[in-house]
Amino acid sequence: MTRARIAIIGASGYTGAELVRLVTSHPRMEIAALAADRNAGKAMGDVYPSFAHMDLPRLVATDDIDWSGIDLAFCGLPHATAQAVIGGLPRDLKVVDLSADFRLRDAAVYAKWYGHEHHAPELQDEAVYGLPEFYRDALKTTRLAAGTGCFVVTGLMPLLPLCEAGLIDLDDIVIDAKTGITGAGRSAAEWKLFSEVTEGTKAYGIATHRHTAEFDQELSKAAGREVVVSFTPHLLPMNRGILATIYVKGDPEAIQAALAARYAAEPFVQVMPMGEAPTTWSVRGSNMVRIGVTPDRRPGRAIIVSVLDNLVKGASGQAVQCANLMLGFEETEGLMLAPMFP
Amino acid sequence: MTRARIAIIGASGYTGAELVRLVTSHPRMEIAALAADRNAGKAMGDVYPSFAHMDLPRLVATDDIDWSGIDLAFCGLPHATAQAVIGGLPRDLKVVDLSADFRLRDAAVYAKWYGHEHHAPELQDEAVYGLPEFYRDALKTTRLAAGTGCFVVTGLMPLLPLCEAGLIDLDDIVIDAKTGITGAGRSAAEWKLFSEVTEGTKAYGIATHRHTAEFDQELSKAAGREVVVSFTPHLLPMNRGILATIYVKGDPEAIQAALAARYAAEPFVQVMPMGEAPTTWSVRGSNMVRIGVTPDRRPGRAIIVSVLDNLVKGASGQAVQCANLMLGFEETEGLMLAPMFP
Amino acid sequence: MTRARIAIIGASGYTGAELVRLVTSHPRMEIAALAADRNAGKAMGDVYPSFAHMDLPRLVATDDIDWSGIDLAFCGLPHATAQAVIGGLPRDLKVVDLSADFRLRDAAVYAKWYGHEHHAPELQDEAVYGLPEFYRDALKTTRLAAGTGCFVVTGLMPLLPLCEAGLIDLDDIVIDAKTGITGAGRSAAEWKLFSEVTEGTKAYGIATHRHTAEFDQELSKAAGREVVVSFTPHLLPMNRGILATIYVKGDPEAIQAALAARYAAEPFVQVMPMGEAPTTWSVRGSNMVRIGVTPDRRPGRAIIVSVLDNLVKGASGQAVQCANLMLGFEETEGLMLAPMFP
Amino acid sequence: MTRARIAIIGASGYTGAELVRLVTSHPRMEIAALAADRNAGKAMGDVYPSFAHMDLPRLVATDDIDWSGIDLAFCGLPHATAQAVIGGLPRDLKVVDLSADFRLRDAAVYAKWYGHEHHAPELQDEAVYGLPEFYRDALKTTRLAAGTGCFVVTGLMPLLPLCEAGLIDLDDIVIDAKTGITGAGRSAAEWKLFSEVTEGTKAYGIATHRHTAEFDQELSKAAGREVVVSFTPHLLPMNRGILATIYVKGDPEAIQAALAARYAAEPFVQVMPMGEAPTTWSVRGSNMVRIGVTPDRRPGRAIIVSVLDNLVKGASGQAVQCANLMLGFEETEGLMLAPMFP
Repeated sequence: MTRARIAIIGASGYTGAELVRLVTSHPRMEIAALAADRNAGKAMGDVYPSFAHMDLPRLVATDDIDWSGIDLAFCGLPHATAQAVIGGLPRDLKVVDLSADFRLRDAAVYAKWYGHEHHAPELQDEAVYGLPEFYRDALKTTRLAAGTGCFVVTGLMPLLPLCEAGLIDLDDIVIDAKTGITGAGRSAAEWKLFSEVTEGTKAYGIATHRHTAEFDQELSKAAGREVVVSFTPHLLPMNRGILATIYVKGDPEAIQAALAARYAAEPFVQVMPMGEAPTTWSVRGSNMVRIGVTPDRRPGRAIIVSVLDNLVKGASGQAVQCANLMLGFEETEGLMLAPMFP
Repeated sequence: MTRARIAIIGASGYTGAELVRLVTSHPRMEIAALAADRNAGKAMGDVYPSFAHMDLPRLVATDDIDWSGIDLAFCGLPHATAQAVIGGLPRDLKVVDLSADFRLRDAAVYAKWYGHEHHAPELQDEAVYGLPEFYRDALKTTRLAAGTGCFVVTGLMPLLPLCEAGLIDLDDIVIDAKTGITGAGRSAAEWKLFSEVTEGTKAYGIATHRHTAEFDQELSKAAGREVVVSFTPHLLPMNRGILATIYVKGDPEAIQAALAARYAAEPFVQVMPMGEAPTTWSVRGSNMVRIGVTPDRRPGRAIIVSVLDNLVKGASGQAVQCANLMLGFEETEGLMLAPMFP
Repeated sequence: MTRARIAIIGASGYTGAELVRLVTSHPRMEIAALAADRNAGKAMGDVYPSFAHMDLPRLVATDDIDWSGIDLAFCGLPHATAQAVIGGLPRDLKVVDLSADFRLRDAAVYAKWYGHEHHAPELQDEAVYGLPEFYRDALKTTRLAAGTGCFVVTGLMPLLPLCEAGLIDLDDIVIDAKTGITGAGRSAAEWKLFSEVTEGTKAYGIATHRHTAEFDQELSKAAGREVVVSFTPHLLPMNRGILATIYVKGDPEAIQAALAARYAAEPFVQVMPMGEAPTTWSVRGSNMVRIGVTPDRRPGRAIIVSVLDNLVKGASGQAVQCANLMLGFEETEGLMLAPMFP
Repeated sequence: MTRARIAIIGASGYTGAELVRLVTSHPRMEIAALAADRNAGKAMGDVYPSFAHMDLPRLVATDDIDWSGIDLAFCGLPHATAQAVIGGLPRDLKVVDLSADFRLRDAAVYAKWYGHEHHAPELQDEAVYGLPEFYRDALKTTRLAAGTGCFVVTGLMPLLPLCEAGLIDLDDIVIDAKTGITGAGRSAAEWKLFSEVTEGTKAYGIATHRHTAEFDQELSKAAGREVVVSFTPHLLPMNRGILATIYVKGDPEAIQAALAARYAAEPFVQVMPMGEAPTTWSVRGSNMVRIGVTPDRRPGRAIIVSVLDNLVKGASGQAVQCANLMLGFEETEGLMLAPMFP
């Protein structure tokens, strides 16, 4: 069985490192190139000592990659940079982008939330939204997948089926999300220091977080009308995990039943029995999403809790899931990782 | 200047220990007795090595306290136990109870949420709700103050003025709270182990947490009609701090202005400028509450963030604040602690 | 390729859960039975929600396991209990015990450190010390392997070759070890609460920790004379990882060279270049040991740092490594896990 | 009672913020000026939201401080910068410096360890080592105190009396220290990110950490001959606290007795009963040092554990203690803070 040859651009970031972890244990992939412009020339084990014992290609500049013979590239660069780099890649190369650059299909919406014109609008048209549970067929034939926002996938998994089925009031969706800090990446900043984060919490980006636009886009598409959500992220003193607490109006029994039915055959989504709520500990290190529905004490309302590991199902794991589809592999190949607890 | 002689019942719990911390640095209080039935006979420094260098009375059984000459007792026992013990104390002794036993004024409501009849309903009638910013005058003359629930005070501080003034839709209040684990006390349980708590989060007691009844009681009283909130607590991997994210319908400008005006003269409450949100780091170890209001992106809605230290303003600090009023001291005496960060 | 059928006794403890994680991803093993006497009847997913989506046998009492057709049992019970249970297992069943029960070959030494006579001294004779890098051949033929102490394997990996080669002063070995809390297991105790562990550290079991006897036994055997070490463990606010800082007298260059040569071909041991020290982050979730040697500023002394994940190479991973040898598999089968960082 | 007027230079660093916490609750001090060059013009509450409710002077550039009427300045600047700034202050201003600049009395030693010539050697001569328990009389009359290294004070407290009394082998002192991260300050760096620090540990600066020179200086002075220690610091995933485990040769009983006698009258040092070891939790937020002595299992050796809060007794608390002496106040004034646990 031949292996697909994989390049990882932006390998020295956290999503890049997580891709290395996943790809090196994937039975049908092998790493052909690792790119990290600022760290070019270094061994991956110098940038991540956890990989020091592994036989990995040395980091190179993206421009120095020889693309012949490479089947697929993961791109873990920051937004704006990603669109420039991906625009310059060979046209026949399959690409899974993990940035925000190709998630929004409307160039005007992109410009509004990200503050500048999109530099590769033609790729924006071509990109398929990288949520396999909802874009499976399109992902099998696309050459460019747009990795989903980590908060967004956490919220969309329960909300998309409910918007599609008209089971909730589309004008009253509140998403209160809690995240570990790895979603903020590895660049140094005072607010990300251990001394500033441990033993406390805060809300941030209230009503202005960029993932909001992505929520609106996908939920509106599912509902067939405009949906505008309230979304508030919070930073927690932990590395991995997102928990979204979602307040909706609708019949809790119908909601739970619809979700359970929708995801019964999905390998990476588990809907819990009525009244149970999942924890982030239960998904750490894995590609799982777990969803629980509890009736609110006020009739006709439900509280939905959805969890995942932001670096796996929220980023690199989902990217590998997309790549499996794009490469014609089993969708679960290399991704049936048991969560790591404790 | 004579000092009030203080007894602390339940001194080996976390609220008891925090009372010791606060009372020993209070210029007008001195510790006359420390009771902890299971640890009776031990030195406080054996139960809390942080106090090992301090000159403190040895722990005794509550029944062995000589009440003559004691001015006020703090009671940090679990609910149900507290009502039994306080029922047996001298009638002229001032008492600040930190349990849930005297917070609910309606015995039927108590029985519904706590699962048993109240054993001291006459004390229940007598108790004043221990929220000085709203019950200041009554606290000056009562002999029994009922310490407020830690989640409840976090939410009431912003919500009470808004309910009183009719500035928000009373039928659509969502309180999403995040707490450190010290609120759960010092008793050993698997779910409280470091190995089970670090690096993750969960929602718990969804729609059933007992503090809900206390929210309803106080908000209904303020609004002059029944208020039923949605309240969801979450456990965070940290020791101290509660952050409540509150979703309301109302005019954000009017809400922020009303809160700023209401608390302008309150020493322990700070309302932040429009659009700023406080963090739990900013109140750790102090008796402060900080409140921020941000307009939601959906018109006519606001997102309010309220924070405090659950062991101080959420429990022992507020208890000392009540005691100051009951003993005729300056309300701020001994409580102007600077937060400890980092 | 047939898979070995595996039973895990003590599956509801942390080492048991880690075995489930490892065995379910092992290409040549399958779980035939999971035993946990106190949790018998429950689903594994109820005890560890991280496994809730996996198809695992229900927990049973150890006595209810049908041993026919089972090839190997891992036993993750506490010491003393383990020897009783293992004594009652079928004589032809291969067993890897993770407790301290079969580590000490001298019954008198066991009795001294563990406070009671050994109940299965005949098994004690039969057991092979479960350190594959030093007992590989014996492990291939034994039916009982004795899992090593988590601190001990951390220290032995650098010290055994040095004692064998006479490269260090045998009378002056100081092992200062730092560990995460999962080594203390899942049973509830006040000192293990998150609120008691976070944001601080302590030494414990100074000069009396039971792993000391295991150090003495193996180092004396390697040196061919009695070796008595100083060993001090410390508890750190983290879940996984042991870091041992070892102070020895000897030539740093010779020490580093000897270790590098000794482990050049070992898949799970990496000796770092002179002067580099490994971190526990670099081994989390993996079966790796990393060792670094730095010259002390005092001539003729070296400071050795050794790290591993206490639940993997310090317990369950090493147990699987032993099982691979006992079952005739490749020693690395199922164990080439990339560390998980961040 | 008049209050001393205090300036804090470097107020936006962690030691600066801790000084603000301590000085604002000090009954005989008041803050007259806060300087922070890069943050000049900001409110202290913008830099540390924990101070947002307090009435504090706005941050200014050091050069803009009006020194008339200021009694004492604390200087919390980095080394090298501190000597330049302090050299330019009024000659009659009392100064407590918290950097490493005036700790080493020998300019050649300073140059060797810090890599550049000292810029204010005349001040170096004038400075008194800021360890009140050993330099009390000199501190009462000096105008410049040199704050001690945080690791150094942790180790010196037990070691100085033992070196003075000749109770330990001066050629075999091993100091294995564990610290929280706040000692590394607030400047952003990848290695200090929460995501890089949580859930792991490492040794660093093995045999090369600059505090080593300070150990040598003070221990040699106490012993009356050259002492060369082995010192290895470790970073722990916590904010505050240093624990030093010290391995010495000597009679444990004599060691414990000597320390207990030496510190019996010291308000900030507690020597524990034989065989007990202190924890960092027990000193958090306070100015206490706790010391425990345990006999090693090897006769004639002892294991000493010493703990303190690096931001208080390891830095700002000790600086206030020095300032109390320099200003003629009670040494304990404003410093009898109860530790904060949990």
